[in-house]
Amino acid sequence: MTTPTQWYETHRDLLDRAVQAAAARDYWSAYPESPSRSVYGEDAAAAGERAFRALLDTDFPLTLPGTTGTVATEHSPYGLELHVRYPRADPSALIAAARAAVPAWRAVGPHGRAGVAAEILRRINARSFEMAHAVQHTTGQAFVMAFQAGGPHAQDRGLEAVAGALAASTRLPAAATWTKPQRGGDPLRMATSTTVVGRGVALVIGCNTFPTWNSYPGLFASLVTGNAVIVKPHPRAVLPLALTVRIAREVLAEAGQDPELVTLAAEEPGDGVAATLATHPDVRIVDFTGSSEFGNWLEANARQAVVYTEKAGLNTVVLDSTDDYRGLLRNLAFSLSLYSGQMCTTPQNLLVPADGIDTGAGRRSPDEFAADLSEALDKLLGDPKRAAGTLGAIVNDGVLARIAEAGTAPHVVHPSAAVTDPQWPDATVRTPVVVRLDAADEKFYTREWFGPVSFVIATESTGHSLRLFTETVRHHGALTAAVHSTSPEVLAAAREAALDAGVHLSENLTGGVFVNQTAAFSDLHGTAANPAATASLTDDHFVTGRFFLLQSRHHA
Amino acid sequence: MTTPTQWYETHRDLLDRAVQAAAARDYWSAYPESPSRSVYGEDAAAAGERAFRALLDTDFPLTLPGTTGTVATEHSPYGLELHVRYPRADPSALIAAARAAVPAWRAVGPHGRAGVAAEILRRINARSFEMAHAVQHTTGQAFVMAFQAGGPHAQDRGLEAVAGALAASTRLPAAATWTKPQRGGDPLRMATSTTVVGRGVALVIGCNTFPTWNSYPGLFASLVTGNAVIVKPHPRAVLPLALTVRIAREVLAEAGQDPELVTLAAEEPGDGVAATLATHPDVRIVDFTGSSEFGNWLEANARQAVVYTEKAGLNTVVLDSTDDYRGLLRNLAFSLSLYSGQMCTTPQNLLVPADGIDTGAGRRSPDEFAADLSEALDKLLGDPKRAAGTLGAIVNDGVLARIAEAGTAPHVVHPSAAVTDPQWPDATVRTPVVVRLDAADEKFYTREWFGPVSFVIATESTGHSLRLFTETVRHHGALTAAVHSTSPEVLAAAREAALDAGVHLSENLTGGVFVNQTAAFSDLHGTAANPAATASLTDDHFVTGRFFLLQSRHHA
Repeated sequence: MTTPTQWYETHRDLLDRAVQAAAARDYWSAYPESPSRSVYGEDAAAAGERAFRALLDTDFPLTLPGTTGTVATEHSPYGLELHVRYPRADPSALIAAARAAVPAWRAVGPHGRAGVAAEILRRINARSFEMAHAVQHTTGQAFVMAFQAGGPHAQDRGLEAVAGALAASTRLPAAATWTKPQRGGDPLRMATSTTVVGRGVALVIGCNTFPTWNSYPGLFASLVTGNAVIVKPHPRAVLPLALTVRIAREVLAEAGQDPELVTLAAEEPGDGVAATLATHPDVRIVDFTGSSEFGNWLEANARQAVVYTEKAGLNTVVLDSTDDYRGLLRNLAFSLSLYSGQMCTTPQNLLVPADGIDTGAGRRSPDEFAADLSEALDKLLGDPKRAAGTLGAIVNDGVLARIAEAGTAPHVVHPSAAVTDPQWPDATVRTPVVVRLDAADEKFYTREWFGPVSFVIATESTGHSLRLFTETVRHHGALTAAVHSTSPEVLAAAREAALDAGVHLSENLTGGVFVNQTAAFSDLHGTAANPAATASLTDDHFVTGRFFLLQSRHHA
Repeated sequence: MTTPTQWYETHRDLLDRAVQAAAARDYWSAYPESPSRSVYGEDAAAAGERAFRALLDTDFPLTLPGTTGTVATEHSPYGLELHVRYPRADPSALIAAARAAVPAWRAVGPHGRAGVAAEILRRINARSFEMAHAVQHTTGQAFVMAFQAGGPHAQDRGLEAVAGALAASTRLPAAATWTKPQRGGDPLRMATSTTVVGRGVALVIGCNTFPTWNSYPGLFASLVTGNAVIVKPHPRAVLPLALTVRIAREVLAEAGQDPELVTLAAEEPGDGVAATLATHPDVRIVDFTGSSEFGNWLEANARQAVVYTEKAGLNTVVLDSTDDYRGLLRNLAFSLSLYSGQMCTTPQNLLVPADGIDTGAGRRSPDEFAADLSEALDKLLGDPKRAAGTLGAIVNDGVLARIAEAGTAPHVVHPSAAVTDPQWPDATVRTPVVVRLDAADEKFYTREWFGPVSFVIATESTGHSLRLFTETVRHHGALTAAVHSTSPEVLAAAREAALDAGVHLSENLTGGVFVNQTAAFSDLHGTAANPAATASLTDDHFVTGRFFLLQSRHHA
């Protein structure tokens, strides 16, 4: 047995460094993003693939309370047969087991809990190749992206949440002395102790496209602040979270804690387990990533809980002028193509003034810009192997349906084309569709078209673009926004517009940084200031609602 | 004009000290609690009374948008004619004016806003005598208590909120550089800026008994995090908040800011302005102190806002054993008597095991303890002048009705007696009523009897007392709890019970510290962990929900 305190001592330097990094906001990463032998070891790639393959068509090794049979709900977008069977647990049994585990976890205190969490992350990191295959074959992300976004980047987001939770829950001293001078007498002296108490049972509802990246912040923030966590994966992306839960339970058990602190609520599609759990009186925290419809439902109905949601939005780019038009096109084409636009951060609405974008070498009208962007897409995606590595596979039929629907619009500038992935011929791979609209075509662009669908929208002027940006994002939300301009006045106005809209802003990205990527420990993800989310990964507000500070005092 | 930045420089040392004190939790106070000439000046007391008297029977000098006539709704519990007339403003006009003022306030930044807030508090402190009269004649608090709780202690709570808001909103650097190494190339370099953006318009709903102490935390936390604040006073306690709002507007105007950032929404009783404002789409933060009924209504209906409530509860004392029985009785009698028990923190349910409290000199049965407590009350309140100074006046007819109702219980141990205040013969002054109950008399003791009503409740054992404590507080809430025991095991069990119940605990108070008093910068007030409140004054969670952190980034 290794106690939580011992795990804290083991990982103390890492945790200190993570807390410092989260405060400094310079680049920092705890888990190397490169899937290279020199980092992860000679055999890591092969061993990871073997471990993944060994799980296929088996009962996933996880013993949970109140189970009745198994579910097998995953289908690889790459065509591989998965058929992993997960235990199907009774929600009430999971909650009862979680509740029973909480008091001993409360007694561990924040440092021990952070130590346990850091050890969980260390073991997850060591299995990043196995995780990469699990993420690839549930989300459709290409392998390298699945490795990075589903592995080290997700682990960094998890560690960021650990650091945020540890920092926020230890800001008040656990013990303090209070000495108040009294006129003509001895001072009053009190000893005060402060205890961190979690809300109780937390629920994390995972999504189809980023099962680990979007779940780890809530999972680790809740765990470190003294809560038990039930993980409800998307039925199409169970394996990455099942692996995570199994590792967490191993570490908890070795630390002398009840493994029921972290459980998995796998279900058949349509079982409605998320709604059942989220509205149970004993579930006090809900983290959700997914559709606006269910996210809004959770916010309205899970009233006994604090609810952190990340939903849909209208990610917007305001195009005014540039001194690097080719860089702009290259950068934007990659942003639209990466993982077939199946990111909550992919730009959708591209606003271009009717009189065009000033490129330094002449203005490009909305039509010309749309044609240039199409050409940049074709150039980026010309080679099938490279294209497949960028696009990945289409994750589900909903995305395919939206590609088809967008393809019937009156002015399709860049139709979506099928690409054959040389390695995975059964995968459904599609290039982005780009549609030309005018500002009046609101009914098209004021809803999210999740997937590789974007609109080049002609506006009256850049001022009009900025107003449209603020209004649409205020009403419909956004997770990202970008502006391209060489004018300091326009950039200043864009910053104000983004503050009014309540969205983070990327300015003049023409190189190796993309609007759809945010890095743990430096970039906040989501803002809570517009309808797309009620949380920001990871600010103080994301962690402070998960625990209470309770004091006791007595004469010293 | 003094700019916000200049006010920050003026008050920088105070703000730094306040942030340090809030982190250290030792005793610290910025505003002297003693109403003495040596502190506040030779003429301060007389000048304060003159200023207060000059306001009576006048139109309160405050020019607000959208006003139609005035309201005069206050009646001094001491019998003094007040008839101060306040402008009655249209809620929509207040909201529109508040919204218009926010963008320039956002641009000031956290430090400038904290500087302005510190100057507002400095001027409020300088008028503590005037405020004391205003608090005395709206709440019924005796003068010295009105001075302390309504003046310096409230100001300390306000400064604590300023410090908490400043610290939380400046934890991320306003500007940071991000440098990510690249294999075989120049590093990626980004410059990131982070801006604090308030939610928008905040509403503070004041209560009858502590108009300043309970309103300042929300008011200053919202203001410093970039929001405009509409103050809706209780119709019976307008003057203390009208003075506060006027001072805030003066400082804001002198700082070049729009005074509509802080406005007053005075109303006739029954106008329902609180509900109208709290459910307006543009009101994004609500702070409320008052009844559970309206607090719960706000939590259920003000869905567009973050809602911080402090409501009613069952403050409980578990009595097991003591080595200072006389000190215990003296301390408890004072806690029951102070301001006639009209504090949200006054003990109500006193749990005594059937076989009695071990006092070191024999056990005292529930009946004997009840008799001893009655005697301690009579001793404390024997002299009318001193009694009036402790009890203050009954604030309203609701309290009187509860005293009368409790007096009809089968086993009244200490009936409430009328006391004549020599200085204010028209004041309604009453001693506490103590009723003897058994654990089975749940229907009596599981609701709050706000006012000087307490129950000595016989339980089977101390273990039973602790279970009853946890169960009743979990279900009905509490703001305070206390335990008396000489047994380390019982104290440990009481601490666990308080953590389970979600309430702060005071242990063995027998001297000059009372369970109903909490000090800013050291004691948290409320916990959010039980139904009596959704906020804790002042932890990070109380401030982090009031603002967003928005980033912009560009190549460096």
